Amino acid sequence: MQRVEREIQRLIKEIDYDEVTRLFNMLSGGKRLRAKLILKIAPDEKDAPLLAAIVELIHAASLLHDDVIDEALTRRGVASVNATDGSKIAVMLGDVLYSKAYSELVGFNKDIAQCVASSVTSLSCGEMQDVEMAKEFNEDEDKYLKMLYLKTATLIESAAYSSALLAGKDAPSYGIYGKNLGLSFQIIDDILDITSDSATLGKPAMHDFVEGKCTLPYIHLYKELNKEDKQRLKDLHAKTIDASETLWIKEKMREHKSIERSYELAQKLSDEAMLCVKDDIELIEILKTMIKRSY
Amino acid sequence: MQRVEREIQRLIKEIDYDEVTRLFNMLSGGKRLRAKLILKIAPDEKDAPLLAAIVELIHAASLLHDDVIDEALTRRGVASVNATDGSKIAVMLGDVLYSKAYSELVGFNKDIAQCVASSVTSLSCGEMQDVEMAKEFNEDEDKYLKMLYLKTATLIESAAYSSALLAGKDAPSYGIYGKNLGLSFQIIDDILDITSDSATLGKPAMHDFVEGKCTLPYIHLYKELNKEDKQRLKDLHAKTIDASETLWIKEKMREHKSIERSYELAQKLSDEAMLCVKDDIELIEILKTMIKRSY
Repeated sequence: MQRVEREIQRLIKEIDYDEVTRLFNMLSGGKRLRAKLILKIAPDEKDAPLLAAIVELIHAASLLHDDVIDEALTRRGVASVNATDGSKIAVMLGDVLYSKAYSELVGFNKDIAQCVASSVTSLSCGEMQDVEMAKEFNEDEDKYLKMLYLKTATLIESAAYSSALLAGKDAPSYGIYGKNLGLSFQIIDDILDITSDSATLGKPAMHDFVEGKCTLPYIHLYKELNKEDKQRLKDLHAKTIDASETLWIKEKMREHKSIERSYELAQKLSDEAMLCVKDDIELIEILKTMIKRSY
Repeated sequence: MQRVEREIQRLIKEIDYDEVTRLFNMLSGGKRLRAKLILKIAPDEKDAPLLAAIVELIHAASLLHDDVIDEALTRRGVASVNATDGSKIAVMLGDVLYSKAYSELVGFNKDIAQCVASSVTSLSCGEMQDVEMAKEFNEDEDKYLKMLYLKTATLIESAAYSSALLAGKDAPSYGIYGKNLGLSFQIIDDILDITSDSATLGKPAMHDFVEGKCTLPYIHLYKELNKEDKQRLKDLHAKTIDASETLWIKEKMREHKSIERSYELAQKLSDEAMLCVKDDIELIEILKTMIKRSY
């Protein structure tokens, strides 16, 4: 991973604008999940660290724009760029990182470059759908999962697919692995927003629903409720909810096993992913750790 | 140009998201200056319309983000996307168009793809510098021109350079043509913000200075003023100014020939551009029309 960090620093330095370097170095790098995947899938390819650095720049850019859109004040425990330097600078810094990533991407073969570039189109469409869908209560599970795929899973899918291409491995299998890893990761995230306390999350619990996001457990719950309770749940959507309302939702979810059902889907997607890379212990380990995480 | 419009529509359709199609079709296409340049420089290349479509998508994306940054309510006489659908949607629509453009760009040879992609990095850095520089009065002409080059001229430069590459022409000469065309276009724009009335401009006159932008005539004027008047000009920077203050600035500019000096630089850049493409009557005609425009 040191090679990836060195490549990232080299690319940022090449942009040759002190303000970009300063702002970028204030960002938390996060887990570098996408970079780790690429190095694990193509460990012996000399261009793998550069590909990993490109994908991490794209991920960083998407988070910058995501924070502008969500008006988020913190990201990974540090103040977001839109909080410290304003949303204008956050939009432009994102554009700088995206374009630098693309400039480097064109050095790769066309299949790799196109796969990564088009995943950003999906990602941005997913983000738009997320904003649109938060405007009203959504009970359509397929629609929700499609948005989740676009918004969260396509970049992980393309990281896995493109690094498999680079290493001459079976790209479609690795692509499914990446897709399912991304989807189940996000479903677990959505569950934790409901089951964790706010101290653990670093944000108020059930924040998704307050923000208008009907995640899988809410969609499941809605299906199971009687007509009157359906309306009650809808009425709480996208509003600040008090302790008794929070409790009601949680009790109803317990009664109808909404969390368990959502978890089962994450588990099923994760199992499918394991079958795609069944000889690769390290990739399976990533899945196992992810599905077990409790924060 | 019909071939370019068809390519643009094809790319938008390929994104396969109705909301994107709807929003994109609400945008005004503008003059399509960059696309016209590309078709004039590479008229016989079968990929020229696609390259032109890509560059126009990039330009549209940059304007979407520009409008978010400037909080502009109109663009080319129609309501901006951030005004009608909010800045979140405008940011994401920009990202969708950028990424679609890049996905297509990777099909071109590496020199062309890299030239266009890296011009977007310059463009975004220029936009960041513009925001930074508007925070205080800037009297540094070189710094201003460097920002202008990055923000306005690099994409026109890369359109000219890359289409010359495509046609097997002398790319560096066409690059200088594009750069100087972009710079002198913007200098004329900055002059018109001062000399035109608000009805012609469709926005309040001297809006740039009110927004904090010290364009060339203001930089020139500042150099010529005595100490007391220097302070007076600085005190007016980035504020709403009344009729008597507007008049004072215009009179001082007349006295010190600040508009003429700025116009001379635009003319000089335009002359240099003509020398670079001296056999190409159509490209020279574009320059002449541009330098003469009065609105």
